[in-house]
Amino acid sequence: MHRIMLTVSYDGTSYNGWALQKSTHNTIEEMLNRAIAGLTGETVEVIGASRTDSGVHAYGNIAVFDTASTIPGDRFSFCLNHILPKDIRVVASAEVAPDFHPRHCNTEKTYEYRILNTKMPVPTKRFYTYHFSMPLDEALMQEAAQYLVGEHDFTSFCNVESTAATHVRTIKDIRVFRHGDEVIIRVTGNGFLYNMVRIIAGTLLMVGRGKNKPIDVKEMLEKKDRKAAGPTAPPEGLFLIKYEFLDGVPYINGEE
Amino acid sequence: MHRIMLTVSYDGTSYNGWALQKSTHNTIEEMLNRAIAGLTGETVEVIGASRTDSGVHAYGNIAVFDTASTIPGDRFSFCLNHILPKDIRVVASAEVAPDFHPRHCNTEKTYEYRILNTKMPVPTKRFYTYHFSMPLDEALMQEAAQYLVGEHDFTSFCNVESTAATHVRTIKDIRVFRHGDEVIIRVTGNGFLYNMVRIIAGTLLMVGRGKNKPIDVKEMLEKKDRKAAGPTAPPEGLFLIKYEFLDGVPYINGEE
Repeated sequence: MHRIMLTVSYDGTSYNGWALQKSTHNTIEEMLNRAIAGLTGETVEVIGASRTDSGVHAYGNIAVFDTASTIPGDRFSFCLNHILPKDIRVVASAEVAPDFHPRHCNTEKTYEYRILNTKMPVPTKRFYTYHFSMPLDEALMQEAAQYLVGEHDFTSFCNVESTAATHVRTIKDIRVFRHGDEVIIRVTGNGFLYNMVRIIAGTLLMVGRGKNKPIDVKEMLEKKDRKAAGPTAPPEGLFLIKYEFLDGVPYINGEE
Repeated sequence: MHRIMLTVSYDGTSYNGWALQKSTHNTIEEMLNRAIAGLTGETVEVIGASRTDSGVHAYGNIAVFDTASTIPGDRFSFCLNHILPKDIRVVASAEVAPDFHPRHCNTEKTYEYRILNTKMPVPTKRFYTYHFSMPLDEALMQEAAQYLVGEHDFTSFCNVESTAATHVRTIKDIRVFRHGDEVIIRVTGNGFLYNMVRIIAGTLLMVGRGKNKPIDVKEMLEKKDRKAAGPTAPPEGLFLIKYEFLDGVPYINGEE
């Protein structure tokens, strides 16, 4: 058997997320399982690195699966893209060590939350940004965000339905900046709880529009209570940008 | 009667263009006619400034129509957006002089053609860029584009089915530049022939990938023969950015 790692870019608009808890169809995971079955004839279940929500997008989510196929690891990208719909692309593929598991690695993940900060909505951006028409002070948002950097218990920034064993995570960096007509929140960390980036975005929006002061975010964090933080911002603004495996990826036969 | 001017932003992906020659349904124009009828009870036919093709997008196309309704001009934007689908937004509206005709004015139009220049496609950009995976030299494209600036007979850069009385147009400015993972061709002129921007884009792509030299574009222009220029680039990369009325807009009751 060979373990294949896929780097997957997708437009999450038409899907019920990567994989829902209940047995829901029309997920990214299911599309990958079906495409691999179509290619190799095997029944597989990919293991995903990040279970993105319905409507959330990714440039580089990671999935692995095992196959007896002799297709070279780096060819899966090309072959699967002929089968997959155009809103899902395997941008890279490679064979990796059989015990490589993307969720049991020392990783750094980068997300972006994109806010379209214009008076009127822009139709071509309606699925790829959260439209927020009131003025936003991105300098205050940046100041507020710095209270979240470091190792903290992020219970206030986690969906109450989370089943994670611990709510302690480390945010390495958050930057809030204006890029054209968008305000972008770029956050890098070792792991994120259920809805964590969207709650951070919803909270920083409260600061950006003047409903909260930057220092309030410190207090919200210390309360360890979901009700203390801001609302969960909608999914369409969220992009999983990239995964970094800090101890490297155990490629077989060289990197793709 | 009152003449109302609408500034319209749309995602052209799902439409057969602004208005097709034959009586085709599912056009931007038809959606506007229907929304206005729903609002005022009148049967109207909007007059559009630019008949964009199927799949082409706009931030600021212009339409006018006449109505006996007493709705203030600046309220049409709000009211029509409640009726229109989300891929069409009226971003501004105002009452204008009854003889104002958007195609009979001294105007400057700006288009952008957006090329996604990455090895692999990006699903979230698939309807809003033309994906071109080979390396492009944008400095050569910029050099080539300068031969098109000024008043010229653009027959080589016009669909042969054009019924325009003259093929002489003036391009005021073209800039080719890299913006993130895109190469953008931004062109401003007093008017554009059928497919003109897409043929300019297709021709500059030939230069950018080294199939033609910048000076070849001068010769293509001089030949006044559609076969001399490059292919017509696909519609999804094209955005009508804005219309400027150089002699002003004759607003009634002040600008919106």
